[in-house]
Amino acid sequence: MKLVPLADRVVLKPIVAEETTKSGIVLPDKAKEKPQQAEVIAVGPGGIVDGKEVVMNVKVGDRVIYSKYAGTEVKLDNEEFIIVRQNDIVAKVED
Amino acid sequence: MKLVPLADRVVLKPIVAEETTKSGIVLPDKAKEKPQQAEVIAVGPGGIVDGKEVVMNVKVGDRVIYSKYAGTEVKLDNEEFIIVRQNDIVAKVED
Amino acid sequence: MKLVPLADRVVLKPIVAEETTKSGIVLPDKAKEKPQQAEVIAVGPGGIVDGKEVVMNVKVGDRVIYSKYAGTEVKLDNEEFIIVRQNDIVAKVED
Amino acid sequence: MKLVPLADRVVLKPIVAEETTKSGIVLPDKAKEKPQQAEVIAVGPGGIVDGKEVVMNVKVGDRVIYSKYAGTEVKLDNEEFIIVRQNDIVAKVED
Amino acid sequence: MKLVPLADRVVLKPIVAEETTKSGIVLPDKAKEKPQQAEVIAVGPGGIVDGKEVVMNVKVGDRVIYSKYAGTEVKLDNEEFIIVRQNDIVAKVED
Amino acid sequence: MKLVPLADRVVLKPIVAEETTKSGIVLPDKAKEKPQQAEVIAVGPGGIVDGKEVVMNVKVGDRVIYSKYAGTEVKLDNEEFIIVRQNDIVAKVED
Amino acid sequence: MKLVPLADRVVLKPIVAEETTKSGIVLPDKAKEKPQQAEVIAVGPGGIVDGKEVVMNVKVGDRVIYSKYAGTEVKLDNEEFIIVRQNDIVAKVED
Repeated sequence: MKLVPLADRVVLKPIVAEETTKSGIVLPDKAKEKPQQAEVIAVGPGGIVDGKEVVMNVKVGDRVIYSKYAGTEVKLDNEEFIIVRQNDIVAKVED
Repeated sequence: MKLVPLADRVVLKPIVAEETTKSGIVLPDKAKEKPQQAEVIAVGPGGIVDGKEVVMNVKVGDRVIYSKYAGTEVKLDNEEFIIVRQNDIVAKVED
Repeated sequence: MKLVPLADRVVLKPIVAEETTKSGIVLPDKAKEKPQQAEVIAVGPGGIVDGKEVVMNVKVGDRVIYSKYAGTEVKLDNEEFIIVRQNDIVAKVED
Repeated sequence: MKLVPLADRVVLKPIVAEETTKSGIVLPDKAKEKPQQAEVIAVGPGGIVDGKEVVMNVKVGDRVIYSKYAGTEVKLDNEEFIIVRQNDIVAKVED
Repeated sequence: MKLVPLADRVVLKPIVAEETTKSGIVLPDKAKEKPQQAEVIAVGPGGIVDGKEVVMNVKVGDRVIYSKYAGTEVKLDNEEFIIVRQNDIVAKVED
Repeated sequence: MKLVPLADRVVLKPIVAEETTKSGIVLPDKAKEKPQQAEVIAVGPGGIVDGKEVVMNVKVGDRVIYSKYAGTEVKLDNEEFIIVRQNDIVAKVED
Repeated sequence: MKLVPLADRVVLKPIVAEETTKSGIVLPDKAKEKPQQAEVIAVGPGGIVDGKEVVMNVKVGDRVIYSKYAGTEVKLDNEEFIIVRQNDIVAKVED
């Protein structure tokens, strides 16, 4: 099964961050913090949303930062996703 | 009796999820969680809603994810439905 | 005396639901639940409301579902009515 | 002294309802309920309000139902008035 | 010193009401009630406010009723003023 | 260092009011009251803000009244400023 | 890794202020105050945001003041950033 987002929605898969210090030591204790990074899994078609034209600027595979508290959490086949509006994605993370 | 939604409203029938692990074991205890998936039962005609053109993109039989807390719960002939605006439907679930 | 709604307002008469099981047994105890169905008693003329064109899509005699908490409750000649905006009517109930 | 409403404002004089049963018996005890009916005392000129054209559809002498909690209560020459926007008037009461 | 209001702002001087019965007896005790009447002291130029054309319809010397809780209270040269948007003025009081 | 406001922002320097009676006696105790008057220190360029054209009507050196609770307080080189939108300035104070 | 902001978003790196008196003495104790100044690290492309054209007026390297409480805090490679909408940046700080 797969999620096919509508309008300006984007399906994200949160990336559980491993906190790593600059010297390379992993700090596991921050696991309780809400993840901020996510991978884009599926992108809606955009178009007229709330009477306004929305062009989609993210694509599948992008690594993104999204607004805390935004979106609808979904569990499908035991995996957790979050579906947000593109406007709740504030930045991409690039190498 | 049947529900005929107005404007951009969509009648949904929530799907009570059976939690199934990847290995196929059913986990019945999450029944108290609010269902997130629903089947589309009826779709409004769309048109001008709040002064904005709305085109309907879901159809009867679609399996969808909708925003928590959205919509009006209705009981008709002892069945439970939820009527939401199309904009509260965030994704379709496809095989 | 009668109520003549303005603009996009609709006068509704709530239908006190008798809970009936599929086998026909009446369950009277849910009488305390707020009724969700109503009969349309009078329909405003529509037109420009808040700067937006509103076309009225319900008519006198329609049986409708309306949003909980919406509207102004009115008592006239000892009958209870609720006056809502058409946009608070989410669906018609048809046979 | 008189109140001359501006823009889309309407001056109302609440009608203290006497509760009368169909058989004609007056029930005085509901006097504490907030009156819902009012007589239109003065009507603003309408025009562009908040950037939107408003046409006034009520006239002096109309008996109307208005939204609870709407408006500004005014006391003038020991009489109580309420000044509402026309949009807070939901229906006229006609014989 | 004088206050020169900007845009759609209006400078008001609240009129501390003397409560007078129809027979002419002054009731001084209501002095604690927030005054509702005010005299217009200065009127802004109107024009485009929040992207919408505003025409000013009140003039210096008008006696007006304004919405409770609206406006910015100002003390200048030991006099109290309130500066409101014209839209917070609901009616003029005329003789 | 200086503050260069963006868009419709205006940099203000609050004027700590000395309360003076008409007979000229200074009342120092009101120092805890939030100042309402300010001097305009810098004015943004205006232009399209939130999709609406904003023309700047205040200039450096103007003495103005601004809405309480509006704006961002800034400390720069040990001086306190407040940066508001022009729309939060309700009046100029002129001699 | 780097943050590439979308639409009208701007990536900021807060500047932890050292409080310095005019005579040059550093006051370290205010470290707990939320920093108000930040350096612009990356600027989104602007364009149509929420149906409105947004032109970006800040550039990488600008030192800016931003609204308290605005934005999404992000930690990347153990550095703290805040991503705001350009409209939450109220002023530049120039020498």
